Amino acid sequence: MAIGPPTGMRDWLPQETLLRQRLMETIGSVYQLYGYLPIDTPAIEDLDVLLGKGGGENEKLVFKILKRGDKLAQAEQEGKDLADYGLRFDLTVPLARFVATHQGKLPKIFRRYHIGPVWRADRPQLGRYREFYQCDIDVVGGASTAYEIEIITATERVLAKLNLGKYRFRLSDKRLLPLLLRGFGVPETNIGPITIILDKLDKGDITQVRRELDAVLAPDSEPWKNVTALLVWAHALRAQDTDGDERVTHFKEYWNSISDPSVRAEIENVLAGLQTIRKSVLAVNPQSSIVFDPILVRGMDYYTGPIYEAVVENFSSSILGGGRYDRLLGTFAGKDIPAIGCSIGFERILSLLQERESPGAAKAERILLVRQAGDLVEMTRHAEQLRAAGLAVESYLEEDDLGKQLKYAEAAGMIWAVKEVDPEDLSLLVRHLPTRQDQAVSLAEFQALLYR
Amino acid sequence: MAIGPPTGMRDWLPQETLLRQRLMETIGSVYQLYGYLPIDTPAIEDLDVLLGKGGGENEKLVFKILKRGDKLAQAEQEGKDLADYGLRFDLTVPLARFVATHQGKLPKIFRRYHIGPVWRADRPQLGRYREFYQCDIDVVGGASTAYEIEIITATERVLAKLNLGKYRFRLSDKRLLPLLLRGFGVPETNIGPITIILDKLDKGDITQVRRELDAVLAPDSEPWKNVTALLVWAHALRAQDTDGDERVTHFKEYWNSISDPSVRAEIENVLAGLQTIRKSVLAVNPQSSIVFDPILVRGMDYYTGPIYEAVVENFSSSILGGGRYDRLLGTFAGKDIPAIGCSIGFERILSLLQERESPGAAKAERILLVRQAGDLVEMTRHAEQLRAAGLAVESYLEEDDLGKQLKYAEAAGMIWAVKEVDPEDLSLLVRHLPTRQDQAVSLAEFQALLYR
Repeated sequence: MAIGPPTGMRDWLPQETLLRQRLMETIGSVYQLYGYLPIDTPAIEDLDVLLGKGGGENEKLVFKILKRGDKLAQAEQEGKDLADYGLRFDLTVPLARFVATHQGKLPKIFRRYHIGPVWRADRPQLGRYREFYQCDIDVVGGASTAYEIEIITATERVLAKLNLGKYRFRLSDKRLLPLLLRGFGVPETNIGPITIILDKLDKGDITQVRRELDAVLAPDSEPWKNVTALLVWAHALRAQDTDGDERVTHFKEYWNSISDPSVRAEIENVLAGLQTIRKSVLAVNPQSSIVFDPILVRGMDYYTGPIYEAVVENFSSSILGGGRYDRLLGTFAGKDIPAIGCSIGFERILSLLQERESPGAAKAERILLVRQAGDLVEMTRHAEQLRAAGLAVESYLEEDDLGKQLKYAEAAGMIWAVKEVDPEDLSLLVRHLPTRQDQAVSLAEFQALLYR
Repeated sequence: MAIGPPTGMRDWLPQETLLRQRLMETIGSVYQLYGYLPIDTPAIEDLDVLLGKGGGENEKLVFKILKRGDKLAQAEQEGKDLADYGLRFDLTVPLARFVATHQGKLPKIFRRYHIGPVWRADRPQLGRYREFYQCDIDVVGGASTAYEIEIITATERVLAKLNLGKYRFRLSDKRLLPLLLRGFGVPETNIGPITIILDKLDKGDITQVRRELDAVLAPDSEPWKNVTALLVWAHALRAQDTDGDERVTHFKEYWNSISDPSVRAEIENVLAGLQTIRKSVLAVNPQSSIVFDPILVRGMDYYTGPIYEAVVENFSSSILGGGRYDRLLGTFAGKDIPAIGCSIGFERILSLLQERESPGAAKAERILLVRQAGDLVEMTRHAEQLRAAGLAVESYLEEDDLGKQLKYAEAAGMIWAVKEVDPEDLSLLVRHLPTRQDQAVSLAEFQALLYR
């Protein structure tokens, strides 16, 4: 009988769990440098909280929790809803609820990050899970573009620390594309559909995008010409590393066609700030860039201002994205609350790190203490002496011969085995497993070998 | 409209989340010294996995998840079960499932720890939650008492590192009390009820325990005399710090009445080993003790050998407990798998630490960078320079006067504010918030102030 976790969910073996912990710690430590602090919320929320709050398609994917006891019996009898709770499907709806619950206790500018699992009853497919981790960083209450600059700068430091290689931040504004399309003379009813079509350029097939555009806009009409020109221009730019500033300038012919000058001002403001900071102090990958990308869409309807995402070289989809969403968080609090957030593709980054990680990396620090003939308690005393010096020592407590013990250590990915311990001066006889060489060393010499 | 997390569940504010993370890291780092590695499993398991596997009363408290789509419609129509999944109510049943799923991939002796939330639809009450953390450490596959010694030694190191003060480990064997009662001539049908009654001595009221005994055993009968004498003896011992060894010796009159000598041998073996190790190397609180406690029961039916728990001075209930359970883990694998585990009362320890923690402790490292008149981008550059030196800097990005900014930093529990930064040599003008004194310092001097 095959037995496993539920469909689309995963067990985490030690190596993966350690890597996940390290990723959480790395991300958290960088955001803490910026004054962001962690919070958590229950896995479960009232269904009233989860549904109808901007979750879009995700609301259909909620795992619902059955009512219990009398309430369930009553619901069944009266044909009412059988469920009262659901598992959270993202960390944004819980944040909105959290902000309403703790109003008054939170600072006016509330910087927080939240890393945790969410659940979606999605159709399982390769790389998509029904339980997966999200990692959200948000500033609640900040209305100025200074917060966009801060959150992108902090996130660049995360990417630098994770050493993921060359990446590109794309930046635009949720309001821009509709304003542009309107300026091009696109009929109001076509603005939504065309936005969705342009978003598909992400998949890289411009021919397909053009074909879909031709089906919506009359070829050779004025709107068709403008949209097509924009598409071709944006597509060409995506292949280049032009500076953000330059792109905004190149884009000037288009700015004239949009009616709200503040959108341009905000984009320029954020880009100029980021360029200055990046040039002066931030230790970013010098090949990486931040670029203006006018046809960037980002899926979520709740964005209200600047939006951005980052792509890593040789990885098809974006690894993080975010933007300003000034109206969602106030849903429960009963007033608009400005907010800007970034969601890091935790699972995607984890899988990138997993591919890169050498199989033994997370285990290399563990040392096997070999069991010799003799007293187990004496052996435990030796192990304790080594642990007191900070060594991670696994005692081999079964009665097996030396060969079997060393084979076990090798299979477990260990590099060193301690064969003998002198309890007086802690001198050791150690085996380097990859080369099968024994050495007599002092504890200090062994520590130097371990951490070199 | 009041809006909050579901009944019996909690939000974690930053201070609490940081403390929880630190506790998880501390526990994990000590167990890793012993070669234990972390694993994780999904929050959700199949109901078939969760139910009927030794979870006892907890099985009634499972949060069940509604089937979805066609399956739900079909179940409603045919009057079948409406739920297919449930949230895990402990970490032991998932471990049994995990061991079966990954048979062959795990080492013969599998040391793991698992810290994570579990859910129970319990009646909420003070200090009892419907979502709470458990922390389990287990050795799977090890049959010798060397593993009892290892797991208790490792756990003592955890307690020492957490600095919870004087504690007492109580040790017995799940088989002992029934054997004793049988030797006393207690009728077989009364053994279970009397065990439950003796377990209530934990609450400290010996008069009440005696009253209940009198209702089960005929006063002045031989069994009544023996059980009462045992109770009085054990009660007196609980108030003392006698060594484990001595107790076993004092107990000699009782050993003769039990039929299985291996139980005594195992208890003596574990206690003697622990005493030797504790006397020689382990850095434990010298006032703490490990004592033999013949009327220790531990609730779970699945224990099969040595059992133990630890109590901390001035804290009523035990803060951890565990034992050997050689038959539970094989439930899904289809064969007996020896195992010894320890479950640390994560939430209890967290609440002890919370009481002890000074309110600002976790926030003290955060520094406010004051906003002066001038360019925000310039300010961000200064902040980045300080962050590159490892300082956790929160930039005040709103346009408020200095007094308001400093008041905010104080309210947030910060100790230091940076009022001015010279970008050339990174000399700083800093404010010590508790004393309201300004000082001109170099970056190195400031770091020395922060970490002293």
